Parts: sequence; structure tokens; C-alpha cells
Amino acid sequence: MKIVLDAMGSDNYPTPDVAGAVQAAREWRDEIILVGREPLIREELSRFDLEGLNLNVVHAADVIEMDDDPAWAAREKKNSSMHVGMNLVKNGEADAFVSAGNTGGVLTVATLHTLRRIQGIKRPALAIVIPLPAGRFIALDIGANVECRPEFLLQFAMMGDVYARAVLGCANPRVALLSNGEEPSKGNSLLKETYKLLDTAPLNFIGNMEPKEIVAGQADVLIADGFSGNVFIKTMEATAKMLSGLILDEIKASPVTAIGGLLAKPAFGRVARRIDPFEVGGGPLLGVDGVVIIAHGRTNALGIKSAIGQARNAVQGDVVNTIRDGLADISKE
Amino acid sequence: MKIVLDAMGSDNYPTPDVAGAVQAAREWRDEIILVGREPLIREELSRFDLEGLNLNVVHAADVIEMDDDPAWAAREKKNSSMHVGMNLVKNGEADAFVSAGNTGGVLTVATLHTLRRIQGIKRPALAIVIPLPAGRFIALDIGANVECRPEFLLQFAMMGDVYARAVLGCANPRVALLSNGEEPSKGNSLLKETYKLLDTAPLNFIGNMEPKEIVAGQADVLIADGFSGNVFIKTMEATAKMLSGLILDEIKASPVTAIGGLLAKPAFGRVARRIDPFEVGGGPLLGVDGVVIIAHGRTNALGIKSAIGQARNAVQGDVVNTIRDGLADISKE
Repeated sequence: MKIVLDAMGSDNYPTPDVAGAVQAAREWRDEIILVGREPLIREELSRFDLEGLNLNVVHAADVIEMDDDPAWAAREKKNSSMHVGMNLVKNGEADAFVSAGNTGGVLTVATLHTLRRIQGIKRPALAIVIPLPAGRFIALDIGANVECRPEFLLQFAMMGDVYARAVLGCANPRVALLSNGEEPSKGNSLLKETYKLLDTAPLNFIGNMEPKEIVAGQADVLIADGFSGNVFIKTMEATAKMLSGLILDEIKASPVTAIGGLLAKPAFGRVARRIDPFEVGGGPLLGVDGVVIIAHGRTNALGIKSAIGQARNAVQGDVVNTIRDGLADISKE
Repeated sequence: MKIVLDAMGSDNYPTPDVAGAVQAAREWRDEIILVGREPLIREELSRFDLEGLNLNVVHAADVIEMDDDPAWAAREKKNSSMHVGMNLVKNGEADAFVSAGNTGGVLTVATLHTLRRIQGIKRPALAIVIPLPAGRFIALDIGANVECRPEFLLQFAMMGDVYARAVLGCANPRVALLSNGEEPSKGNSLLKETYKLLDTAPLNFIGNMEPKEIVAGQADVLIADGFSGNVFIKTMEATAKMLSGLILDEIKASPVTAIGGLLAKPAFGRVARRIDPFEVGGGPLLGVDGVVIIAHGRTNALGIKSAIGQARNAVQGDVVNTIRDGLADISKE
């Protein structure tokens, strides 16, 4: 298997990106193609013992930066690591593309300039795999489509189902709709229409679900429009950070609680590992004609390695072709 | 001042409700009118020393239960504590109504059967006051209107501004719009249209805001449609509970961390108090022609007392008339 990594992706590129690629190459022995500014990548690679690893470099002159406007950058920076990397996948020279770069950039370069949509897919969706104490789930759309129609959400559900089976190892993924209440009558008009479509689709649709049940691990695939999905995952992230920070502040506020905090430290470490987003590495861009995994910009080497792991599973699980076939199934119903 | 308390409101009525009323009567010396099944309330009151307190009971035969369908219950249970209590406010026999009962029930009884809307208000909004380490903010709408139009959100912003000034003591409330990004171009079409209205309204509108900044205390008034607002506050609540539970589990998992946890316990207590929803007691139903405060169903005596405190401040701040005047101001612009 050949996996392309955008070496100019993360906030601190190319350091975590290259380190993650080396870890992945050591673990799985696949070929990893690092795309980006060659001198920078070679310099970073020189820090590692690469004996026996299959790491190659493909030069790309441009970099789509985190604060670039995605539409502008995708149009103007045609030699970016994203363009060059995704074209390798498009041309059959590699099997998957991984980037921790500008999410809108990856989305636009993939959808409009390189891989493009799988035929029949109305809108590609950004997904994320979220770790929970009770397991993990995939949420989509988390921001690619702030305006949605019920047919889009039906396709998101099918794509999420395929991904959960192929990559997360769920035998019969429980598909739920993010809502403000459990009854079919809950939600806005988009949700009520979507509920009807999902209820008759060939999916294990378990209905509307509130955040409490989602966070308790009661769904494997969470479906939302890109606006609500984005608010949901960002609120989870923001609340967890706020609470962790507050607990640390209050523990440090007195000597006795500070000693208690030191003794309890291994517990905090276990908590952090059980919900560490870098353990899962990010999420796929689903609906484009090729495997694309987007990692968090603030990622570390582990996050990049995990994202490469997701890409491997997506290739092995033949996610793109299974989505293509799934389209026929949900259209039949 | 006379405040009506729905004694049949909370999940464990009338125990926390009556206890909270007694605490409030002790602290502020206002008249509190307990509405509900008189024998039950009298029995509960008999546990307290009521010397010098101004507590009265008004009988109401029906109870709108937590699992009642709001529309049905509001129509069929005409002698409920909600109907009787809000009619006391409507008829000028009391100044405010407080309930920890079925939220949809309070909303429907207020809007369609008793107090009704302030003239010119398009949709009443459910609000909640959320405690944060860095202060507190009011969020609305959190569920009364899952479908919104930009004009509704403009009115929500005006009402939230009035409440933040009168009850939360903000001199110049920072009004923000819940969004998936900060730029004016972010959000769905509802948000983009609302942004334009808010930008020219006589409000301290600080723009779109993502959950991270909201949770960091950067807004005093958070505006959302009822669907997104509901997802936002429920996700905050669910994530905080999940994380607290996980930390406790991991601390208990080994003897050393358990001892650390015991020593650190006062810190956890301080954290809990700094974000205790019962310290603020709930939120107002804004836009109806009378002060209505809704407390959480799982409340305790402190929560009821705090909700009565919010009602007092809303009456003293003349919230209802200020909203009436504010309507003229935002229509002028």
C-alpha cells in the first residue's frame, strides 16, 4: 500500500508530520510518500534512522497555509502539497491521502480541483472519529455543508455506516440523528424529513438522539447538518478543555489539594488517554473519489500516525467502492 | 413584592420547591405564594419554623407532570398549578412566576393560555443563565423555537440584552451569535441574515462566536435558534458530566490515586460550585407579558431559591416593560 502524507499540513509542519510518517512506516512497513518542500522534508528526515523504511519524497513548491482562504488557495496554489498529493491518488500512483492542513483547503482541493466527488454523491461530508470512555463514534457532517437537504443527510448516513464497518470495526453500526429530543416529532423541518428517509433506508437507524446519549456512547454514527455538527463537536471540545483547566487551577490553589493532585496524576493521565483525539487521528472526507483523511492541525506525531492508520483501514476496507455501491442500495429503497 | 412558586414543579415536588421557598422567604422577606395541592404543601410547610415569614398557599387541583404532552396538558389541565399561578401574575395579584416543572408546559400555558406574548413580540424565547469560571452568560433561544427567522433572533438579542442588564448586572452586554466560525460569512443563511440585522441594531453586537470563546466567557448574551441553542447547552452539560464521571472512575481505580483524590476533594468541590447550575437557578421565558423563571426539573432547594432570586431581580429591573420599550427601539433602526 502507498499512502501520501501532506508534509506541510500541521500547524508545526513538517516536524510532527514527518515524525508521524516515520512511526507509521516502522509499524506497518507501507510505502509513505511525503509531499511538500523537498529540502525541508529531507532535513527533517535526516534526524531519523530510516534503515529498512519505505519513505519517499515528492516535491511540491506551494503550501496552503492555515489562514489561507480555501477557495483562493485551492485556485491559486496549484503546486501545493495538497494538489500534488491528491493527484498522486487520482492517477493511481498512491492509495490514500492524509493531511493535517487547512480543512477547507483539503475539502476544496479534493472536491473541485483533484479527486472530485464519487458519481451520484450530492455533497461530500467532513467526518471526525471521536474517542469516548465507552468506545468511539464517527460524526458527520461537521462543517463542509452548513446548508443541507434531507437527501444529503441520507447519503451522509450511508457513508458513515460504510466507514464505521470498514474502519471502526462495527458489525452493525447504530446510526443516530443529532436532535433536541428523541421523539420523531422533534427537530427542525430538515430533521423531520431526514428522519423519514432514514427510517426506511437499509441502515440500523436508531432514531433521534440527544447529546447526553451520544456522549454516553449509544451511537456509532452520528448524522447532522454541517452547522449543528460543527457546533456539537466544538462544544464537546471546548467544554472538556474548560473543565480540565478549571480542575487543574483549583487543584493548584492550595498545598493540600496540590499534593492530592500529584498523587492522582496517573488517573488524569488515564482520563486523557481514554479521550485523546490523537489516538484516533482525525476523520475522513467522505464522498470524494479517493481516501482522504484529515488530522487536527494541532496534532502530534501520534496523531499523524493514527491518521495514517485510519487511511490504511479505509483502503483495506475498500471504503470508496463500498460507498459507490451503497449509493445504488439507498436509491433503490 | 409577591412571587408565585409552582409548588408542584420539580421532579421531587413539593419537597425541594417548598424548602427553596422557605429559604427565599427567610432571605428576602418577600411574600411567596405557593400554588398546588394545598394539603401536600401544608404538610411540607409543617416541617419548617415559619415564624415571621410571609408564605401563603393557593390551591390548584391539577398537576402538569414532567412526562405530560405540553399542548395536551395545557389545554386539559386548566386547574394546574401553572395555570392558577400564572393567572395570579396576569391579574396583578403577584409580580412573578417561578416553576421547575415541565418546560414545554410552562411555555404553552404562558404563551397560549394565560400571560400571552408582549404585543409585538414574534416568538417568546426560552433562556438559561449558565455559570462559567469566568462569570456567567445568558443563552437564548434554547428550545422554544426550532425554526427561526432572522427577525426572531433580533428580538431574542434585544430581550437577552435587557435581561443581562437588569438581572445579571452587565453594564453593556456583549451580544454574540452562536456560529461555526467568527467571520460574518460563516454560518447558515439564517445566521448570515441575522448578522446583518444585529450589526445595525442598537446593541453591543460583537459578531459570530465559536463554542471555545463562549465557554471562555467572552459573551454575555448568546443568541441562537432554538435547535442549535438546545444542542449547544445540552452538549456542554453532557460533556461536563461525562468528563466528571470519567475522572472519578479513574481516581477510584487505584489506591494511590484514590488517596490523591481524597486530598484533592476540596478542589473538586470548588470546581463544582463555580459551575453549579443551581447557583443561578435556571432561566427566564422571555417575551411573555409577565416575569416567568423556569428552574431545572432536577433542582434542589438552592436552585429554587436562586430562581426566586432571579425573579426578584427581573421584577426590580422591570424586565417586561423594558422589553416592551426595546421593541420600539429595534423597530426604529
